[in-house]
Amino acid sequence: MADWEQVSLRLRTRRPQADILIISLVNGPYNFLDRQCFDELNAIIAPLDIKTTRAVILTGGVKDIFVLHYNVDEIIDFGLSVPSWLPTPPFMLRAALRLESMIASLGLRFLVRKTLFAGVADLNLYKEVCNLFRSKPQVFIAAINGACFAGGCEFALACDYRVLIDTQTPVMGQIESLIGLIPGGGGTQFFSRTLGTAKALELCLEGKTLNSSEALELGLVNRVTPAEDLLPTAIEVAQRLARRSPYVIQAIKDSIHIGSSLTLSDGLLREQGWFGGAALMAETHEAMKKYARLIEEERPHTLDDFQDYLQPFANGTFFDFTPGSAKSATSTKTVKTD
Amino acid sequence: MADWEQVSLRLRTRRPQADILIISLVNGPYNFLDRQCFDELNAIIAPLDIKTTRAVILTGGVKDIFVLHYNVDEIIDFGLSVPSWLPTPPFMLRAALRLESMIASLGLRFLVRKTLFAGVADLNLYKEVCNLFRSKPQVFIAAINGACFAGGCEFALACDYRVLIDTQTPVMGQIESLIGLIPGGGGTQFFSRTLGTAKALELCLEGKTLNSSEALELGLVNRVTPAEDLLPTAIEVAQRLARRSPYVIQAIKDSIHIGSSLTLSDGLLREQGWFGGAALMAETHEAMKKYARLIEEERPHTLDDFQDYLQPFANGTFFDFTPGSAKSATSTKTVKTD
Amino acid sequence: MADWEQVSLRLRTRRPQADILIISLVNGPYNFLDRQCFDELNAIIAPLDIKTTRAVILTGGVKDIFVLHYNVDEIIDFGLSVPSWLPTPPFMLRAALRLESMIASLGLRFLVRKTLFAGVADLNLYKEVCNLFRSKPQVFIAAINGACFAGGCEFALACDYRVLIDTQTPVMGQIESLIGLIPGGGGTQFFSRTLGTAKALELCLEGKTLNSSEALELGLVNRVTPAEDLLPTAIEVAQRLARRSPYVIQAIKDSIHIGSSLTLSDGLLREQGWFGGAALMAETHEAMKKYARLIEEERPHTLDDFQDYLQPFANGTFFDFTPGSAKSATSTKTVKTD
Repeated sequence: MADWEQVSLRLRTRRPQADILIISLVNGPYNFLDRQCFDELNAIIAPLDIKTTRAVILTGGVKDIFVLHYNVDEIIDFGLSVPSWLPTPPFMLRAALRLESMIASLGLRFLVRKTLFAGVADLNLYKEVCNLFRSKPQVFIAAINGACFAGGCEFALACDYRVLIDTQTPVMGQIESLIGLIPGGGGTQFFSRTLGTAKALELCLEGKTLNSSEALELGLVNRVTPAEDLLPTAIEVAQRLARRSPYVIQAIKDSIHIGSSLTLSDGLLREQGWFGGAALMAETHEAMKKYARLIEEERPHTLDDFQDYLQPFANGTFFDFTPGSAKSATSTKTVKTD
Repeated sequence: MADWEQVSLRLRTRRPQADILIISLVNGPYNFLDRQCFDELNAIIAPLDIKTTRAVILTGGVKDIFVLHYNVDEIIDFGLSVPSWLPTPPFMLRAALRLESMIASLGLRFLVRKTLFAGVADLNLYKEVCNLFRSKPQVFIAAINGACFAGGCEFALACDYRVLIDTQTPVMGQIESLIGLIPGGGGTQFFSRTLGTAKALELCLEGKTLNSSEALELGLVNRVTPAEDLLPTAIEVAQRLARRSPYVIQAIKDSIHIGSSLTLSDGLLREQGWFGGAALMAETHEAMKKYARLIEEERPHTLDDFQDYLQPFANGTFFDFTPGSAKSATSTKTVKTD
Repeated sequence: MADWEQVSLRLRTRRPQADILIISLVNGPYNFLDRQCFDELNAIIAPLDIKTTRAVILTGGVKDIFVLHYNVDEIIDFGLSVPSWLPTPPFMLRAALRLESMIASLGLRFLVRKTLFAGVADLNLYKEVCNLFRSKPQVFIAAINGACFAGGCEFALACDYRVLIDTQTPVMGQIESLIGLIPGGGGTQFFSRTLGTAKALELCLEGKTLNSSEALELGLVNRVTPAEDLLPTAIEVAQRLARRSPYVIQAIKDSIHIGSSLTLSDGLLREQGWFGGAALMAETHEAMKKYARLIEEERPHTLDDFQDYLQPFANGTFFDFTPGSAKSATSTKTVKTD
């Protein structure tokens, strides 16, 4: 097993195989997320190339803690920096957030950080990193090794897949309401769009904490494993999904996250656009021809036949879209999402 | 325990504690909702001030009936008043509803009520009262003491939290399709956004009725209790949530109900706007500092530590945002939502 | 029992009673959907008149296969027809899909089929037929008699109601990711809007296959029955729902599918528009008066009373909206949806 490498102040990485990257956050006793973490995460994740990395596992490098929550001191500082006479209704703050996004897109965020709106830049940076999870062609897997509350919980929810240690202790939840905050990294949106509005309201208003079986039953995590199996399980998921076409990973993520937030008609069109592109790719062509040959040979007819016949699909071994496996030059083609 | 006060023709109220208001509907043998009810509810709820009322419990004052349904006679009258030669496709009715909303916002609904479009005004009034449940900074809790069908069911679904008596008898459901109607107070929208479209379709097409365990399992209600514990349970929830910041209550309701109905990008921005405002409030500042001190003292390190450490969060006693408890003058600050 | 009639190359139909139409797809050993199927389905379904047909059951006429999936050869051909030098990012394909829709609406799809964009026309045709399921006043029931994957699965999900045979063998799932495709007939949208985004992501990324109890528990199907009871159960559902007002069927489908994909405010307005129209219909008027008489006679007061009193609602026998049963001339009035 490869050793951990300290790649920046708060992040260690290792690669259990060449194209899978594990990022471990190590930040003091409580493993808080903070501005520095997101700068470092952004620096690693934004330039990730599908040719060299097909899956990313995010985990906590502190015992029993994934991310306790976002560093409260930074939020307190934001409160102190903005003078109390300044009117800040939500619509003004939304305008400020939009403006900061524009400034940041010009590469000038460092200027905002010198003003009293540094906290606005932090909120946007948090969102941008989570947007990377949704828009990159890699699969993002959270390996949740312990406490994962508030800003840590929504950070995990922004990933594509979540594996959580088996524990009776409450470890997940959007507990912000208890200290006069609300989720700010997307918690209300993920809860609503994953659990429906009624359950989302209850969990956020109560600030409810959940143990692993509650989180699994609600569907907030995909798998629960004994603590010692956490990384092996996450790696196994990564290996399986890394064999999928990166275009397909990207297309499914976009169709589900963005498409399902549009009108039905626009959502269907969005999916169709991705589907058409997939159908035109060289390695998909190859996989479809392999499939056509398989069905020709196997000639499945009964339900039992289908069980056998679909086995290579069920275990994900039917076709390997990793470069070098497929001969196609376009197998790492991905798209700039709009 | 305070006595019930007959505050208007169909409503009785009492306050189990100063800042919690119980509204009991008492309207004939079947406790129908009707125009008169909504006028009275609107008159009580619209002006509610967060300084004096932090939670509202809505219940039925008739034995075994929360609200049987909306008064069918009023719907029949609407059908009789509009001449059958008038073309009324959905888009025309939507235009009429929009126009009536404008007229009502000028305080001129009483004029509409003299026309054949009185039923249009009733539909809008129903919606406006339910919108108050979603937009006010108070928590709205339905204490469902019995039959709760059609217009009664969607009335309960518009609240933030639902406690239902334990019963084998079917008590909830959108049964409109059985008499040639559809839900008109939001039933299709709450079912879809809470249960997903497939289950919503089945329940509404069938007009299915549900007993308490079915309602709980689907997630249509948050708690089921023996009948004698109904109000005590609702009051307990009210007490706990009334200690949250009213700004936070309002922000979470808006982010979930409105935010999750927008595109993902707009929904995330909406949540961020509310979060930023919360972070700037004086009493949130105080709560965060109290929290920072707590973690400094407790120094939790293991999963077991976290269980203890989070106890005041789990039971909601960590910080009291009710005025007088926190010293902050802004603790009752709320926002006009847009 | 009426005999099957071969109505076109790939479709057989029979009517277990005059107003219920069963369409059975019979297309080679694997019962693939293909362009020809959708042309034939469109030709049967588009002109269906509510006066003669109130429910449609779709099933597979091949043993153990509902629809294995869409014919992969047609997708391969699409890939071959479009030259690889042509840039085809999703937004370009969306533009092509929109343009083709316009051309098709002028009745000129046959021209597109002679070009290299024939595959674009196929994608749109698939969507148009599924849109018919959602917009027609008939109830569409999928009687899933076996394997139902990929394009077959989303075809079933586009129906209003799904009955599935009881089997331990995996029979449903969006398995496209295994061969380098994504769902193209709405699978990502139905999964997201029915199961939430987290579960939708897992199922689509993994390409997971589900047996009948898994499909039922997730809510992807409404009923599971032994294979021999499949059609009888589907017919029973069709008989019950065919007695509902077709206007109401149409209104509920539109409010849930389209309404819930809009902002909350627009969704509520959409439902209200349909409700108003229902309230103005002659046979709804009659049903409401019958109901008002019933409650006058029964005078239910206790929860037990309500159980008895609601029995004709629970079993759907309270009022029969089929023409001839109700005297109203407008009982088959439906609307062109916008």
